[in-house]
Amino acid sequence: MSRFDETIAGLKYNADGLIPVVVVDQADKAVLMMAWMNAESLRRTIETGKTHFWSRRRRKFWMKGESSGHTQEVRGIYTDCDADTLVIEVFQHGAACHEGYRSCFFRRLGDDGAWEVIAEKLFNPDHVYGKSE
Amino acid sequence: MSRFDETIAGLKYNADGLIPVVVVDQADKAVLMMAWMNAESLRRTIETGKTHFWSRRRRKFWMKGESSGHTQEVRGIYTDCDADTLVIEVFQHGAACHEGYRSCFFRRLGDDGAWEVIAEKLFNPDHVYGKSE
Repeated sequence: MSRFDETIAGLKYNADGLIPVVVVDQADKAVLMMAWMNAESLRRTIETGKTHFWSRRRRKFWMKGESSGHTQEVRGIYTDCDADTLVIEVFQHGAACHEGYRSCFFRRLGDDGAWEVIAEKLFNPDHVYGKSE
Repeated sequence: MSRFDETIAGLKYNADGLIPVVVVDQADKAVLMMAWMNAESLRRTIETGKTHFWSRRRRKFWMKGESSGHTQEVRGIYTDCDADTLVIEVFQHGAACHEGYRSCFFRRLGDDGAWEVIAEKLFNPDHVYGKSE
């Protein structure tokens, strides 16, 4: 068992074997997205240098950008005091959000209590994923 | 029901009624910590302007900084495309991590596969929380 395997095994996963991952842009630290990894998707992420997650809904591994080409190159992996959350700094190709925004966090709570879109779309999702998605 | 209540009710909570919250520093966007809120802790956060979370282990509300004085003043609340995660920008008094670091994410995965501490402690936890914690 390699040192990487020991480190991966040493993290705290939830009852479903998952750990939350906050993906941030290496350039300005903006939070791009939050997703979940299991031990195997973290191992693939470390091995390939590209983020791999576990889809809870589809119950399968997915590499970020496998459909869109908007992959994420890993620049740094961090864990917290409880070792139950990861932050991964990436170089983001294209945009992180499947709705076409650079970051999934494109809505801000306004003073009136409603969500307000505060970003511009970088691409049209219909063109990237096809109309069927 | 106010517009804020509608917005809070419109988020997607997990089976335990919780939503993950990524807390970032308003100054440089550094991720400080990750914790969980339920609808009521989010309501208190909005109402008071200070972050309130739900402790899964202790099964109670807690205001960040209630023991340490290291409170977080809310500067912005964001949600993602799926409305199942929040990012909250804060002005952090003191340090976010109970271990004395500014951020809970003070360890980086090294090339040798081991975690490496990459930050300096801002305070001694024994002095802030007392030896009993």
